[in-house]
Amino acid sequence: MTAPNRNALWARAFVDELAEGGVSAVCITPGSRSTPLTEAFDRHEDVHVFSHLDERSSAYFALGRARRTGDVTPLVCTSGTAAANFHPAVIEAYQSRVPLLLLTADRPPELRDSGANQTIDQEKLYGDAVRWYKDLPEPEAEPRKLRSLRTTAARALSEATGTPSGPVHLNVPFRKPLEPTPVEGDVPDDLPELAASGRDGAFVKTTPGVPELGDDELRSLAERISEPRGLVVAGPADAPGVDGEAVAAFAHASGFPVLADPLSGVRFGGHVRVTPTLGGYDSYLDPRVTAEWPDPDVVLRFGASPTSKTLRNYLARTDAEQLVIDPAGEWREAEFTATDLVVADPSRLLTRLSRLLAGPGSAEWRRRFEAAEAAHWEAFDASADAADAETAVPPEGRVLADVAELAPQPSTLFVSNSMPVRDADRFARPTTKARTVLGNRGASGIDGIVSTALGAGSATTDELTLVTGDIAYYHDMNGLLALARCDADATVVLINNDGGGIFHMLPIEEYDPPFTSQFKTPHGLDFEPTADLYDLSYARVAGDDREGFREAYAEATAAEGSHVVEVVTDAEESHRARERLHERVVERLAEDG
Amino acid sequence: MTAPNRNALWARAFVDELAEGGVSAVCITPGSRSTPLTEAFDRHEDVHVFSHLDERSSAYFALGRARRTGDVTPLVCTSGTAAANFHPAVIEAYQSRVPLLLLTADRPPELRDSGANQTIDQEKLYGDAVRWYKDLPEPEAEPRKLRSLRTTAARALSEATGTPSGPVHLNVPFRKPLEPTPVEGDVPDDLPELAASGRDGAFVKTTPGVPELGDDELRSLAERISEPRGLVVAGPADAPGVDGEAVAAFAHASGFPVLADPLSGVRFGGHVRVTPTLGGYDSYLDPRVTAEWPDPDVVLRFGASPTSKTLRNYLARTDAEQLVIDPAGEWREAEFTATDLVVADPSRLLTRLSRLLAGPGSAEWRRRFEAAEAAHWEAFDASADAADAETAVPPEGRVLADVAELAPQPSTLFVSNSMPVRDADRFARPTTKARTVLGNRGASGIDGIVSTALGAGSATTDELTLVTGDIAYYHDMNGLLALARCDADATVVLINNDGGGIFHMLPIEEYDPPFTSQFKTPHGLDFEPTADLYDLSYARVAGDDREGFREAYAEATAAEGSHVVEVVTDAEESHRARERLHERVVERLAEDG
Repeated sequence: MTAPNRNALWARAFVDELAEGGVSAVCITPGSRSTPLTEAFDRHEDVHVFSHLDERSSAYFALGRARRTGDVTPLVCTSGTAAANFHPAVIEAYQSRVPLLLLTADRPPELRDSGANQTIDQEKLYGDAVRWYKDLPEPEAEPRKLRSLRTTAARALSEATGTPSGPVHLNVPFRKPLEPTPVEGDVPDDLPELAASGRDGAFVKTTPGVPELGDDELRSLAERISEPRGLVVAGPADAPGVDGEAVAAFAHASGFPVLADPLSGVRFGGHVRVTPTLGGYDSYLDPRVTAEWPDPDVVLRFGASPTSKTLRNYLARTDAEQLVIDPAGEWREAEFTATDLVVADPSRLLTRLSRLLAGPGSAEWRRRFEAAEAAHWEAFDASADAADAETAVPPEGRVLADVAELAPQPSTLFVSNSMPVRDADRFARPTTKARTVLGNRGASGIDGIVSTALGAGSATTDELTLVTGDIAYYHDMNGLLALARCDADATVVLINNDGGGIFHMLPIEEYDPPFTSQFKTPHGLDFEPTADLYDLSYARVAGDDREGFREAYAEATAAEGSHVVEVVTDAEESHRARERLHERVVERLAEDG
Repeated sequence: MTAPNRNALWARAFVDELAEGGVSAVCITPGSRSTPLTEAFDRHEDVHVFSHLDERSSAYFALGRARRTGDVTPLVCTSGTAAANFHPAVIEAYQSRVPLLLLTADRPPELRDSGANQTIDQEKLYGDAVRWYKDLPEPEAEPRKLRSLRTTAARALSEATGTPSGPVHLNVPFRKPLEPTPVEGDVPDDLPELAASGRDGAFVKTTPGVPELGDDELRSLAERISEPRGLVVAGPADAPGVDGEAVAAFAHASGFPVLADPLSGVRFGGHVRVTPTLGGYDSYLDPRVTAEWPDPDVVLRFGASPTSKTLRNYLARTDAEQLVIDPAGEWREAEFTATDLVVADPSRLLTRLSRLLAGPGSAEWRRRFEAAEAAHWEAFDASADAADAETAVPPEGRVLADVAELAPQPSTLFVSNSMPVRDADRFARPTTKARTVLGNRGASGIDGIVSTALGAGSATTDELTLVTGDIAYYHDMNGLLALARCDADATVVLINNDGGGIFHMLPIEEYDPPFTSQFKTPHGLDFEPTADLYDLSYARVAGDDREGFREAYAEATAAEGSHVVEVVTDAEESHRARERLHERVVERLAEDG
C-alpha cells in the first residue's frame, strides 16, 4: 500500500483493516481535521458512506444500524464540540451494549490546550462510557507504527463487539497537509506492501469467545430450575438480539410461560406458534390480581430490565429464586431481589438447559397466565372500536396494536421513549409475524429517536416504521435529513399530544402550576411543514378515527418514499382510558380469582 | 423556610440562595427526576424560567445569556442522556470562559449502575471541562446539611464567575416523592427559619477579586512597552467583555493602533471616535504588503486567539516582544511566539498603564496602519455595488457590512462560525454605533448557534440579529422554538450556499471526489417551511441584490416578531470574489510600498 503522504497512508491502512474486519458502512459528518479519514473511507470500495450534518443525529444513526445488526458502523467527526455531540448516543450505546466506534480527529499534541482554534480536550471525552479508549500516535510511514495501527483497528472492533458490546473511542491526531497532497519523501518507496502484513486481507484476525457454563455447573443449574412453577422474563435484548428458537426450546422443555418485553426479540416471530409468549402482563400482574396466586418457584431473567413497571414490581414482591442470566456479569436488576447471577450467553445457555430439564412444570400454573393473557386481549378487543369515552381504549394503544398487526413482513418497528414503548409493551400483541422491534432502552432518553430508527432501517431491506411521540420527534427532527440524504425510507407514526403526555402518569399532574408550564409544556407546533422541509408525505388522523389510521398507515407502508402519519390525541384522556382499561381487566380477573 | 417534604425544602433553599446570589433566570427542560428543582425555580418570584425541549439548545441558550451578561443562568435537566446533551455547550463555555451552572438531577446512589431505568453515570460527566464539580448529598431537613447546601450554591456561583469564568456542574440526587407531596415528619417543625441563616437574604456572600500587578511591576511594564512602534491586538473577549474606554485610554496614551477582532467588544462603540480602531487587517497584513514594513517593537494581546489567520500569521512572523495579558494565566497563543505572559485583568491593566506611558509612539507607524485600513475600505466601497463577477465583492461581505451599518441602536449581533465570523472580521467596519458583537469562538463549533444567539438576545432589550450559514442554521434549528416559547424576537440573516462553503477555502477543494459528496455536502433544503413551523416571516433575496437585502433587513428589524432573511449565494463564486478583492487591496498597497 502506498499513498501521497503519511496521513493518507495512515488513514487508508486503518480503514483497510476495518473493512477487512467486516466494517461495511461509516457515518461521516463534514470537517477539515478529519479529512484523511473521510478521504480514506470515501475511496474504499467496500464501505458505504452515510453523510450526516448533525453529529448527534449521525451517532444515533450509527447506533441504530449497530443495534439492528450487532455490527460496528464507525463514526467520523472533526475536532472540537462535534465530538461532544456524539456523547448522548455513546451513553445509550454503552448502557444498551451496542457496538460503536468513535473516530474523533484531533489537532497534533502541541496544539492541545494552547488556545488554537477548534481545539478541545478530547482525551477520554466520554469518560467511563466506553469499553476502550486510545489516543493514536501521530501518523508515520513506518512499518512498526503501521502494524500497531492495524492492530488497534482490529482490537477496536473486537472490544466494541466483545462481551458486553459497547462504544470504543479512538482519538486520531493529524497535522497538515490533511488532503492527499503529494509530500516528497513522506512515504518511503520501499515500504513493505500491505503495511507489513504478511498475508492478504486483514492484518489481524479476531476470534471471539462468549462465557459458557461448564457441564457440571449446567447440570446443577438444570436441577435447580426443574420446578413446577417457573417464569421466563425476557427483557430488552442486547444487540443483535437473543435467539427466539432457543427461548422456544427452553419454554417447550420447561413449560414456563415467557413474559416477553416488546424489545426482547421474542415477542414476535415464528417461534411464537409453539411458545406460550405473553405480552399483556403490564395489565394483569396487578397486585389485586396476583394476591391469591401462588408465587413462582423460579424466574429466569435475561436482557435488560423490563420496560413494564408492573412486571418489575411483581418480580420484586414474589418469593422466588430469581436468576439473572447475563454474559457480561452485570447485575441489571434494580429491585435487588434477584438471587443468582449466571454469567453466560442466554441463547446458548437456554438451548443447553432445554436438553437437561426434568420435564414440563405445572400445567395449571401455565394456564393461569394464559387465562390472564386472554382476558387482557379480550378486554382490549371488546372495546377497541368503541367510541365513547368510558369504554374506549386509549388511541395510542390502538395505534401500537394496529402497527404490530398491519406492518408488512418483514418489518423493523422502532418505538420511542417515553410512551410508545410502554404502549407497545401493553398493546402490541405477540404474533408469529416477522417483526424486529427496537427501542433505546439503555438510558431511555427521548433524544436521537428518529436517527436511531433510520439507522436501524438502513441496515435491512425490512419496511421501517417508527412510532414516536411529538417531543421525541421534535428533539431529533434533524435526523429526518437522512431520509433523503441517506436514501432511507420510513413510515413515521407521530402520536401528537402536544407536550409531555407521560407526566399525566406522575403525581406532579396534581400540582398546576407548575404542571402545565414546566412539565407538560405544550408547544403548539404544527408539524406538517416538516413534510415540506424533508419531502415527506403527511397525513393527519384524529385519535378516535381507528379506520382512518389503519387506512393511512396501510397506504403509507405500501407507497414509495417516506411518510408521516400524525395521530392527534389528548394525553390526559388517553391516560384515563389506559387506567379504565386496566381497571376492567383487573376487575374481571379479580372476579375469576 | 418550610416545605411539604425534604426534597422540596432542599430545592427551595438551594434556589433561594442562588436567587440571593443574583440569579434571575433559569433554563429548564421537562423531566421527572428534576421535579424538586423545577418546582422550586418555578415558584420563586425573582427567577424567570425559560422552558426548552431540547437540552442541547437549552444549554446553548443559557450560554448565550451568560456570554452577553457575564451572569450565571443555571440549567436544569432530568437524569440520563439529557445531561449529555449539555456537553457541547459546556465545552464552549469552558473554552470561552462563560459562566454556566449545570444542575443535573440524578437517581439516589444505590440505583446507579444497577440497571435502573434512565440512570447513567453522571459523575464528572463533563470531565475536565468544568471549573468545579460536586455530587450533592441526599436531601435532608437538617441544619448543618442545609448550611452546606447553601454554601455549595454560593460557591457554585463564585466558581462559575471566577477567574477564569466557566461551567460548574452539580449533580443532584433525589429519591421519591419528587413532587411537593406532604410527607409527615419529613421536615421538622422546629427547623430554624431560613435554614439556619442568621441574616436576611443570602446565607453566603462572595466578594471576588481579580489578578492585578503590583505598582513596581506595573511601572516596569510601562517602561518596557514605551516604544515607538506598538500594536494592541484585541482578540475575542471573555464574558462580559473588555472595557472599551480602557482600551481607548491606552491607545490614546500609547499611540498604538488597535487591531480589533469583531468579537473583541472594542471594534464598535463610542470610544472608536477617539481610537485608531482597525478592522481590515485580515486583508492587508498579507506578507506581500508587510514585507517592507518595519516590525513592531511591542505587541499587547488580550482576549482569545484572533479570528483572523492573516493576523495570527503576521504576529508569528514579526520580531517583537509580544505580551499576552490574561487574568487566568492561560497562554492562549498557538503560534508560540509570545514572549511574555502578564497575569492581570486587561481592562484594569490598560487603564493603569495609560497613566504611566512615556508618550505616544511613532506617528509614521500609526499612519502606515491607517493608510492600509483606508485602502481596504476604499477597495471594498469601490466595488460594493458592482455587479460584474470580476470586480464584485463577495455577497457575504456586503451582508456583514450592511448589517453592521444598518442594525438599529443598540443591537446585539451574533455571528456564526464558520464563515460569518470571518466575513464579519473582514467586512464589518469599525463604527461608533452601539453594537455588541458575539460569537462562539471557544471551540468555534457550528452547533448551538441559533440558541446562543437567542439566549444573548433574551438578556437585553437590544435588537437581535443573527448572521448564520445554512449548516449552522440547520444544526440548531430546534433552537428556533425559543422564539415563540421564550418570547424572544430576532432577525436571522441566513446565508444559504447549500452546504459547507468554508471547504472552498481548503486544499480539499481540488480533490473531487470526495469534495462534493463528503465536504461541501449540498443538502438542497428549502428552509422556507421553517418559517411555517416556527411562525417567522420569511424573505429570500439573491446574493447579488444588494438593495433587496438592505430593504429586507431594514424591514425585518423595524417590524414586530421574528424574521428570516435568506440570502442565496454560491460558495465557490464568493470564495473567488473574496480572493479577488484581497488581491486588489494587496496590489494597491504593494504598489504604494
